[in-house]
Amino acid sequence: MEFKLLGTDLQSQARAGLITTDHGQIETPIFMPVGTVGSVKGVLHRELENDIKAQIILGNTYHLYLRPGLDVLKQAGGLHKFASWNRPILTDSGGYQVFSLADMRKLTAQGASFRSHIDGSAHLFTPESVMDIQRVIGADIVMAFDECPPGDADYDYAKKSLDLTERWLDRCVQRFDSTEPHYGYSQTLFPIIQGCVYSDLRKRAAENVQKYNRDGYAIGGLSVGEPAEVMYQMVEVVNGILPKDKPRYLMGVGTPENILESIALGVDMFDCVMPTRNGRNGMLFTSEGIINIRNKKWQNDFSPIDPFGPTFVDSRYTKAYLRHLFIAKEMLGPQIASIHNLGFYLWLVKEARRHILEGDFLAWKNEMVKKVSRRL
Amino acid sequence: MEFKLLGTDLQSQARAGLITTDHGQIETPIFMPVGTVGSVKGVLHRELENDIKAQIILGNTYHLYLRPGLDVLKQAGGLHKFASWNRPILTDSGGYQVFSLADMRKLTAQGASFRSHIDGSAHLFTPESVMDIQRVIGADIVMAFDECPPGDADYDYAKKSLDLTERWLDRCVQRFDSTEPHYGYSQTLFPIIQGCVYSDLRKRAAENVQKYNRDGYAIGGLSVGEPAEVMYQMVEVVNGILPKDKPRYLMGVGTPENILESIALGVDMFDCVMPTRNGRNGMLFTSEGIINIRNKKWQNDFSPIDPFGPTFVDSRYTKAYLRHLFIAKEMLGPQIASIHNLGFYLWLVKEARRHILEGDFLAWKNEMVKKVSRRL
Repeated sequence: MEFKLLGTDLQSQARAGLITTDHGQIETPIFMPVGTVGSVKGVLHRELENDIKAQIILGNTYHLYLRPGLDVLKQAGGLHKFASWNRPILTDSGGYQVFSLADMRKLTAQGASFRSHIDGSAHLFTPESVMDIQRVIGADIVMAFDECPPGDADYDYAKKSLDLTERWLDRCVQRFDSTEPHYGYSQTLFPIIQGCVYSDLRKRAAENVQKYNRDGYAIGGLSVGEPAEVMYQMVEVVNGILPKDKPRYLMGVGTPENILESIALGVDMFDCVMPTRNGRNGMLFTSEGIINIRNKKWQNDFSPIDPFGPTFVDSRYTKAYLRHLFIAKEMLGPQIASIHNLGFYLWLVKEARRHILEGDFLAWKNEMVKKVSRRL
Repeated sequence: MEFKLLGTDLQSQARAGLITTDHGQIETPIFMPVGTVGSVKGVLHRELENDIKAQIILGNTYHLYLRPGLDVLKQAGGLHKFASWNRPILTDSGGYQVFSLADMRKLTAQGASFRSHIDGSAHLFTPESVMDIQRVIGADIVMAFDECPPGDADYDYAKKSLDLTERWLDRCVQRFDSTEPHYGYSQTLFPIIQGCVYSDLRKRAAENVQKYNRDGYAIGGLSVGEPAEVMYQMVEVVNGILPKDKPRYLMGVGTPENILESIALGVDMFDCVMPTRNGRNGMLFTSEGIINIRNKKWQNDFSPIDPFGPTFVDSRYTKAYLRHLFIAKEMLGPQIASIHNLGFYLWLVKEARRHILEGDFLAWKNEMVKKVSRRL
């Protein structure tokens, strides 16, 4: 993997760059739609490619390991072939899901034992096994196995958790670097910076990961309940330490406002279930603000969903029709909302990139934050 | 509406024709995807147009009347504009839904009173009101309001029910012919032939409807539990009486086999929820047979869903991937299966039409029936 920094905003830390992987290029800042089990919920791959213009999608190691499982993925020739997605893929390490979804989880120095949330079967994730699993999945970018402590963890817990995450990182790097990709294209490993809401821990973590000199670094354990201002502080601390010539990935973030503010702080990559999950519940993000399409006020509004929106659903379907689909519980409603929201998120980061390169990012960002966060 | 008979098979009653409406042409025999509340479940309109190549879709009067309701539909300028579908639409009369879905239904000479299955509100459908409702919906082809008796109705019930349906038809025609379309394009009314499984009633009904000399005729009340052979007998009786220069629509039918056999008996139009409903449950209809994609045998089958299938999903996605989506309860599974099944149904009637025009329909049909009805 290669990263080229193409431009930096003079009035903020915002950056525009280009990542090159064996499955193609990624223009940063970028938003990565979440394809939990090898499917971005409700969205066909053709729409992801041609309409939403996704450049990279996420897979969840925890989910893929349980279903379809490693045998199927290996026989298929990896997740790209299995899911017929020929652009870059990033997989998380499963750490977050083990701690949020699985039952009977138990943490030891060795790893995390847990029971499947699907059938109760017992499993053990170790830094080594998670590297091996991600080799089988075959993502272009794989993530280190970490502990993601709760948002309200106290300092002692956070510090001990970071100790563990750092020991695990060491084992992840060793295992990853001593194994080969299975499918003939290269993979790269991003460490994850933890440390909860404690600046000194975040600082220590950001310094620690650099000794491995990887192709990129992720900031994890944020957007888990802490105030947005605290999240931004942590991002600022970390990005002040991370090298400028490597991409920075803020995991699981966030609202359009969160993304714009974090781009201004020098973040290059984002993922979040919000555009699809909230979309499935009828929340639309637009360049003019947030719409709850189930609201009665849209019942007779025959204007397009988003007259300025980038995808075909925005201009083809009206607010009244989309509201009707949600009220009548038609699955087409969530489908349209998901395409719209993902299209908007990808448009938003593309616009941010353009303004960074053109030199007027900060003014645009400040104006945009006001618009995207208001309720229509 | 205009119907041109373009060719008749010499060895069967199969016909190829062309219907012209103000919203475009329909090549018969045709299958009409069901868009209950103005949405073909799980399928975007662009896919219906470009991939499935649907020429006409159905709307359900009962559902559309309850949601979004007539006010919204009228303000939108009719269902075509509301649902952004610019090709022909046919609406059923709501009779079938009142008797199968609604609560507390009560039948009188005047009409059918019922309570909404959604909110329990009280409503009355009369032949006159159902014509007025379909004027507001604005379908190109509207259906007469009828009673659809249960499949096991005895002769007395069936006869009394047909008496009622025939009196209602008279009122439907009077009301329809004394009202005007709302939106500037023409609409036409199809009578429905009832009579359960009793040949003499079917015969009487088929003769009765002709006195109104409409643009087309429908056969209702079949595929409601009776054996397929009995259904075919009834279709044969009715089609032996109906005029050759008008299209014949067999309502709510059926499997690919049912459709092929009924085409051979001279039916021109079909609708059925089967491709979408069964698709959502993982049943795929293909030119080689029926697939239950949830079956474990597909777990490691990385061949295309349907190598001979007409839509992009057939070649892009593998059986193993589609199975995985169903097992993991991803909504993309039902979406892909619905597109596949509808694409197959439309391909099937298109092929039937081609073989009718080329003169080798019967041999092709007999071969095809064997294939499409076997389990893979």
